[in-house]
Formats: sequence, structure tokens, C-alpha cells
Amino acid sequence: MDEINPRRPAVSAPMSVEEFDAAIRSVGTERYHDKHVFHKLLHGGKLNKGQVQAWALNRYCYQEAVPRKDAAFMSRVHDRALRREWISRIHDHDGLGDEPGGIERWLILTDGLGLDRDYVTSMRGALPATRHIVESYVRFVREQPLVVAVASSLTELFAPSIHRERIAGMLENYEFIGDGVMAYFRRRLSQAPRDSDFALCYVKANAITRAEQEACVDAVRFKCNVLWAQLDVLNHAYVTPALVPPGAFVPEKD
Amino acid sequence: MDEINPRRPAVSAPMSVEEFDAAIRSVGTERYHDKHVFHKLLHGGKLNKGQVQAWALNRYCYQEAVPRKDAAFMSRVHDRALRREWISRIHDHDGLGDEPGGIERWLILTDGLGLDRDYVTSMRGALPATRHIVESYVRFVREQPLVVAVASSLTELFAPSIHRERIAGMLENYEFIGDGVMAYFRRRLSQAPRDSDFALCYVKANAITRAEQEACVDAVRFKCNVLWAQLDVLNHAYVTPALVPPGAFVPEKD
Repeated sequence: MDEINPRRPAVSAPMSVEEFDAAIRSVGTERYHDKHVFHKLLHGGKLNKGQVQAWALNRYCYQEAVPRKDAAFMSRVHDRALRREWISRIHDHDGLGDEPGGIERWLILTDGLGLDRDYVTSMRGALPATRHIVESYVRFVREQPLVVAVASSLTELFAPSIHRERIAGMLENYEFIGDGVMAYFRRRLSQAPRDSDFALCYVKANAITRAEQEACVDAVRFKCNVLWAQLDVLNHAYVTPALVPPGAFVPEKD
Repeated sequence: MDEINPRRPAVSAPMSVEEFDAAIRSVGTERYHDKHVFHKLLHGGKLNKGQVQAWALNRYCYQEAVPRKDAAFMSRVHDRALRREWISRIHDHDGLGDEPGGIERWLILTDGLGLDRDYVTSMRGALPATRHIVESYVRFVREQPLVVAVASSLTELFAPSIHRERIAGMLENYEFIGDGVMAYFRRRLSQAPRDSDFALCYVKANAITRAEQEACVDAVRFKCNVLWAQLDVLNHAYVTPALVPPGAFVPEKD
């Protein structure tokens, strides 16, 4: 075949399901944001209250984007069964009926940190880069092939351990964080594995060619970068060199 | 002012809320699809079974697009309260938990008409124009200002009377339509007014300038055209001159 049509690129054989699974998980080992210096400072109790406030109000922008990216995904899905499954992610974040949802729980965390709720939800104090980064995630999910968009959610495979560590680390190390404000993380301990199990099955079933599988692994890498880059800009603005961009949140002096 | 800057166009005063309401409703009077010749044939019992089948499987494409346009809308909404309200529209169409939803009820109608469910949901037999028309509605909602996107849903103001008429007219006139298959329309009698009340309040509160109000009235006109055009192409293909495009559904001979 190659001799008859030498300009046609060689097509690699698909990975086995086990190899594909391992390739996805290796991205987490390499670059999930629990490896980031800012994460280590946050969880190790090495940040002051102003730095934790900056983290929480910037991370709000990410929380706020997540149900929009899930809706953007659903807007492209013709398979009703898949939409019926995926909508539970929006319920988790926005709540449904009496259940207030994860964004509300995040705001209980920012309340507990002494931040004004209108200021947080206005996102006026967030780093400009934070908003660029999270909106690029919404766009990715809106524009990429469906299976690649699903794959970008697979960082949830790596989340439960970070949430467990975060709950323990924060409670232990910060006198200004009480148990009540950690409700967000406790809830995610059960939600994230359910979602990532479904997404992983979907990706394994729908990424068939080697190129599709590699695009999915790249999507996990992309999403890890979304999370990592948020900590880069926080670290730059609030830890070292601690240069806050014009208009962004300035912590009160201790 | 005009003499100082003569090239600046005169800004018309906004309509009063009553005028704005009347302008929206007048679009329905002028061009809601209950005025269409195909609608009159359908409801008057003048169509044969093949023509009703053609209507039902083309209309499926519209039903199938509606939850995607609602998700496209939600993907752009930063206001959590608005998303929490709007998501009930997706529940209505896709169902939630044990509730099967409106698309399932539509498929009970197409089942009852003797159409193969896989053929209907594949949309292979739909008129190409039907799919262009409904996808242009999804795009409109994805791209237009939020208040204009909301306004495009306001054809629901005109829907309950058409559904009541449709239930009565169809049951009376077609021996091949039983009471069980009309569940879709009965359910919409209660859903549509709830949704249109909310949307009308939202549009009145958020279309402030004359230009915004007029864009909203235009959106209702656009949406009426979406519904009207679907009947135009059905009438052309299946009534007169009865020219079915290549690949589209061909009714069995009676």
C-alpha cells in the first residue's frame, strides 16, 4: 500500500483499551494541578488569608464557567440519552429545585473567607488571565469533536484525591477556614467519580482510531493546562513576584 | 442636538410596556403558522395518512432541535437564577428521571402513525430544508443578544390555542389517530403558558431601548418564519405540486 501511494501517511494502530486508559491517566501523573507550587502552598497552610481569598474568588470564575460549558456541550448533542445523562452535571453546579448546587456551596466558602458575595460574582476582582483561561475551556467544549469535548472532563479522574487532601489540609492549617465552608469539596467526592466513570466509558467506546484516541489524551492535557495556568497566574500575582494586575483584587494588609 | 451632530440618527422613544406587548402579539396575528394552508389542511382532516406521516417526521426535527437551542442559550447565561429557570425547558423536552419528556411523546405519535422509530430519529427521511430551517433557529439562539434569544421563544404565547385546536381537529378527522398519541399536545397546554409568561416578563424587563424592543419583535417574526417555512416545504413536497426531493420520505400508496 505504502509503495503504491507513498505520500499517504502511515496510520498507526489504535491503542488497546488498557493502553488508552493508561495514556489518559499518565497525563494526570504528569501535570494535574496538585503538582503545582501554588497548590502545595495552599494545602500546606503556607498562604495567608489574602492569598486564599484571591484563590477562592478566581476559582469562582472556573466554577461559574462549568455549567455553561456543559450546556455548550449539550447544545451539540443529538443523542437524547446522552443529554439526559449530561444534564446532571448542570444540576450539580446550578442546583435543581431545593438543592442549591455547587456554585452556591462555593459562595459559602467565599462568604466564610470574608469576601463580599456581589464582588465575587461580579468577577471584577478576578485576574484577567483567569477569565481568558476559563472561557477558552468553554470554547474548547463548544468547538471540538464531541468525544474530545467529553475527554476534556476526564481530569475528574484525578479530582477525588485532591479534594480529600484539600479538605484535610485546609482544615488543619488555616484558623480562618471552618468545617461548614468545606461543603463544596465534600460533595464533589461523590459527584466527580460518577461523572468520570461515565465519561471514561464514553470516550473508550467512541474514540476508535488512533488519531481520535490521541486527540482525547490531548484534551486531558489541555484541561490540565486550564487548571495549571490558573495557578500560574495566581502565583505570579499573589505569591511571587506578587504583582497584582490593574483592577484585580488586592488583599488587605494583615 | 441634531443640528450639532446631524449624522447621528434620531433615537425613537421606547414603546410603553403595553405597546411592546401588543407589538409582540400582533406578530402572531399576522403570521403564526395556524394561518398556513398546510395547517388548515392538517387540522381540517384534509390530509391523507402519508401526508400526516410526512408532517410528523419532519416536525420531529424541530422537536429534536429545541432542547439543543435551550442548551445553547444556557451556555451563554452567566446568571445562575436564569439558568435554573431555563433548564426546565430541557427537562420538558428530554424528560428527567422517570419522566420521559416531550420528544418521547412525539415518538409515540410517530409510532402511532406507523413510522419506524429508527427511521424517524435518524432524520434521513426529513426534507433537507426542514433541517436547514431548524438548525438556523439553534444558531439564532446561540448568536443573538440574550434578550433577543429569549424573545424568539415567545411564539409559545400563540401555541396553546393551536394545540387545543389540533387535538380536537385531529381526533375528529383522522381515523388513524387515536387519543393516546395526542399526549404531546395535551402536555404542552400546561407547559407553554408557564414558559411564555416567564419569557415575556424577562423580555419586558430587559429590552429597554426602542432598538432592543424592535429586535425582540423581529425575533418573534423570525421564529414565526421558522415555523411557517417548515409548512411551506411540507406543502411543496407533499401537497402541491407534491415534488418530493431526492432521498426524502415517500409515502406508501393508499
